[in-house]
Amino acid sequence: MHDAVFYAVNPDRFARDPEPSPHPWDDGALEPWDAPPAHRAYKGGTLRGLAARLDHLLALGVDALYLTPIWPSTTHHRYKPIDHLRVEPLLGGDAAFDALLAAAHARGLRVVLDGVFNHVGLGFPPFLDVLEYGERSPWRRWFRIAGWPLSPFDPSRPANYACWNGNRTMPELAHDHPPVREHVLSVVEHWLRRGVDGWRFDAPAGVGDVAFWRELRRRARAVRADAYLLGECWTDASAWLDGTQWDGATNYPLMGAIHRFAAGARIRPEHLVPGTPPQVPLDAAGFAREVEGLVARHPWPIPLAQLDFLGTHDTARFLTVAGGDRASVELGALLLFTLPGAPCLYAGDEVGMQGGLPPASRGGYPSHERWDLALLDLHRRLAAVRRANAPLRRGTLRPLHAAGDLLVFERVAGGETVIVAVNAGTAAARASVPLPRAAPPCLLEVGAAGARASGGAGAPLEVVVPGRSGVVLGACR
Amino acid sequence: MHDAVFYAVNPDRFARDPEPSPHPWDDGALEPWDAPPAHRAYKGGTLRGLAARLDHLLALGVDALYLTPIWPSTTHHRYKPIDHLRVEPLLGGDAAFDALLAAAHARGLRVVLDGVFNHVGLGFPPFLDVLEYGERSPWRRWFRIAGWPLSPFDPSRPANYACWNGNRTMPELAHDHPPVREHVLSVVEHWLRRGVDGWRFDAPAGVGDVAFWRELRRRARAVRADAYLLGECWTDASAWLDGTQWDGATNYPLMGAIHRFAAGARIRPEHLVPGTPPQVPLDAAGFAREVEGLVARHPWPIPLAQLDFLGTHDTARFLTVAGGDRASVELGALLLFTLPGAPCLYAGDEVGMQGGLPPASRGGYPSHERWDLALLDLHRRLAAVRRANAPLRRGTLRPLHAAGDLLVFERVAGGETVIVAVNAGTAAARASVPLPRAAPPCLLEVGAAGARASGGAGAPLEVVVPGRSGVVLGACR
Repeated sequence: MHDAVFYAVNPDRFARDPEPSPHPWDDGALEPWDAPPAHRAYKGGTLRGLAARLDHLLALGVDALYLTPIWPSTTHHRYKPIDHLRVEPLLGGDAAFDALLAAAHARGLRVVLDGVFNHVGLGFPPFLDVLEYGERSPWRRWFRIAGWPLSPFDPSRPANYACWNGNRTMPELAHDHPPVREHVLSVVEHWLRRGVDGWRFDAPAGVGDVAFWRELRRRARAVRADAYLLGECWTDASAWLDGTQWDGATNYPLMGAIHRFAAGARIRPEHLVPGTPPQVPLDAAGFAREVEGLVARHPWPIPLAQLDFLGTHDTARFLTVAGGDRASVELGALLLFTLPGAPCLYAGDEVGMQGGLPPASRGGYPSHERWDLALLDLHRRLAAVRRANAPLRRGTLRPLHAAGDLLVFERVAGGETVIVAVNAGTAAARASVPLPRAAPPCLLEVGAAGARASGGAGAPLEVVVPGRSGVVLGACR
Repeated sequence: MHDAVFYAVNPDRFARDPEPSPHPWDDGALEPWDAPPAHRAYKGGTLRGLAARLDHLLALGVDALYLTPIWPSTTHHRYKPIDHLRVEPLLGGDAAFDALLAAAHARGLRVVLDGVFNHVGLGFPPFLDVLEYGERSPWRRWFRIAGWPLSPFDPSRPANYACWNGNRTMPELAHDHPPVREHVLSVVEHWLRRGVDGWRFDAPAGVGDVAFWRELRRRARAVRADAYLLGECWTDASAWLDGTQWDGATNYPLMGAIHRFAAGARIRPEHLVPGTPPQVPLDAAGFAREVEGLVARHPWPIPLAQLDFLGTHDTARFLTVAGGDRASVELGALLLFTLPGAPCLYAGDEVGMQGGLPPASRGGYPSHERWDLALLDLHRRLAAVRRANAPLRRGTLRPLHAAGDLLVFERVAGGETVIVAVNAGTAAARASVPLPRAAPPCLLEVGAAGARASGGAGAPLEVVVPGRSGVVLGACR
């Protein structure tokens, strides 16, 4: 998936059915599409709604959809699955999913599912069975039970079962129980057979040990030789990124570094995920060190398969984190599309959606009247430049200049070079890159126009970048 | 279904897998097969186990299986469905059901499912959704909600939703909501398309009005012209038995009458379903009046399609109700197979199982060492006589003699007559039946041997029956 641009969609929030079709539920219960999202409400987006927008995503330059969970779950985010083998009826059910998959594949778009295997929802039938029958339930060993009875609803009594972050509505599966492991593996195989192109594994740290992930990789790849296997990880994913387990991880560390460089002191602490350490601004040198450290952390080419992003459904949107500063998003997007790893847009970021911590960041995708068309166009151009220039997808990374707020780096692959310059400061900045060569053509400008590059005849490359701007220079077509 | 002998099976209690196969649950949690059944425990019977016994049932003379619910339910009786379109994994899941259906049909056995549509289990996903999202749930109109919040677990607060008999674990569906009605109808159609031969509708009084049941009949019959439609009813089912709704009802009134005649004063009140009026013994005349009244209650031939039985999973077993008196069961079985209606054996009754009120009456089907072989043989012979003699299946009913404890009645169809004499008293009894004819051959004796019939040459038919015995006399082969 080195080459892909991902688009992360919570189907409940992206688009409703293009044409209302008869269905058994009550649309009157849905939260108004444009209302601030409540913690507990559906907006009623569907997989048919998503399928009807695929051409819009193609035009944006998207190659792969990452869908947050689509399994029945009785929550709008569906991270509490109650059935691993069906598609949520409110999303349109199995028929709508299969139609989406076919429509995506017909356009060359891949589809990656979100595998929630650490925990289930209270409504997962084996857990309900244990609630009903206690020790007499044949499913009792599927959960980590400390004693009887279980108490999912009365907080004054011990829960007596392991649950995610202490949340009793999310009982954890007992992954050391062989039938549970086999269940997870068989679910992974099932959906790959059904046509999906890969998996993002939610909260995977507890799901299995190294042997489990190797087995999962073996079985997934036996079904689908190029299945993409991505693990959610908020910190250092090295333990899983030895090349025998996942292909990549969610690159939250890079997200933080980009925020600290592109937004710097504009970061609003109140929009950070609780527990996030202070987001101290980074200058160009600090940012370069961070990025080089992250790339060096894993064997090449794993850094190319990491999933990079500026925000997710679990964070505030970057535009909001940056206090509404649009240039931060522009610079962040430039870095996202030019640093190693597969960029992933959190649906709505590309049209300027705002939103604080969840649920606020999970609003309904805006209608086109409210799109920031310039920002959308920037993303479209970034995706196009990335697609047209292999170094941006597969190239090595080397900083060429990092001083003050100006970072210049190159990506090199197959004898081709792309140079990226980002000036996070407010004043224009200049770099003399010790790379004697002719000035490469300007592929794309971000922010204020007027970046200039000159050089040639044995002289170093000189780059001038206006404040809060960036430029992509390259030799590729 | 006039011609069928039914066999009522709770698959959890009939037979385990014939050969253990790998499965993900923990057999160690199962209740020992022969232990007294607890209210909350599985015994681990499966649909594969049942399929492996079909030849035994064929030999017994069974024509149709009535299965208590097979949908996922987190209870051993499964009357709290959480999915109307799947088969419970613990029973072997969809594959095991489809195999059972094929094996049954290959033997000419029909299969009738139990349709639980009045209420669902708490784990029914739309109900869970309403619990999670309250007024924001698109499924809120699927249930009869009086206010918010719902309280399924805290009895100190109002439930705020209608539930079956006040049991908060069984929320009632809102059948006046058109999507709910459509759901029920589509489920009925689904399983008929899948091959089942009919339905027993559980707790149907609240499921729909006359118009609903007519619509259901129309749609069911459009899928399957001979689909059998049976409603559960403990009292007078006349409202549904006008010929445009159900084909028949569960004939609890007949069960009571047979108990009161065949067991009489032997009935143990402690084994009666709570709320049952005192079961005053009936003499022959009283019993005849009861039976004639029940037959006359509905237009002919509806009485032939009623489901008759001596007990169900919701009652104690008749042998236990009768204080262990085996003759009561023999006489009861004789009446069951010779009175109008389709006899239905509650699995185990035919081999002398005992059991008080549920859960006691829901024991594991005994292994053959513990069968009452004579009782089993009696049932086999009764089924054979019924099959061989159309009057027992389709004939009109006319009492010929009812005095003291001796009842003699005839069933007439197609010019053939079968005469049945039952002496519920302990002393031999004699009747002179005002029916001048030759003594018909004795087709079957129940209880003490020595019943005699004589007549002919214009003289009335004389019948002598030993105490606690009965006889079937007939002209058919």
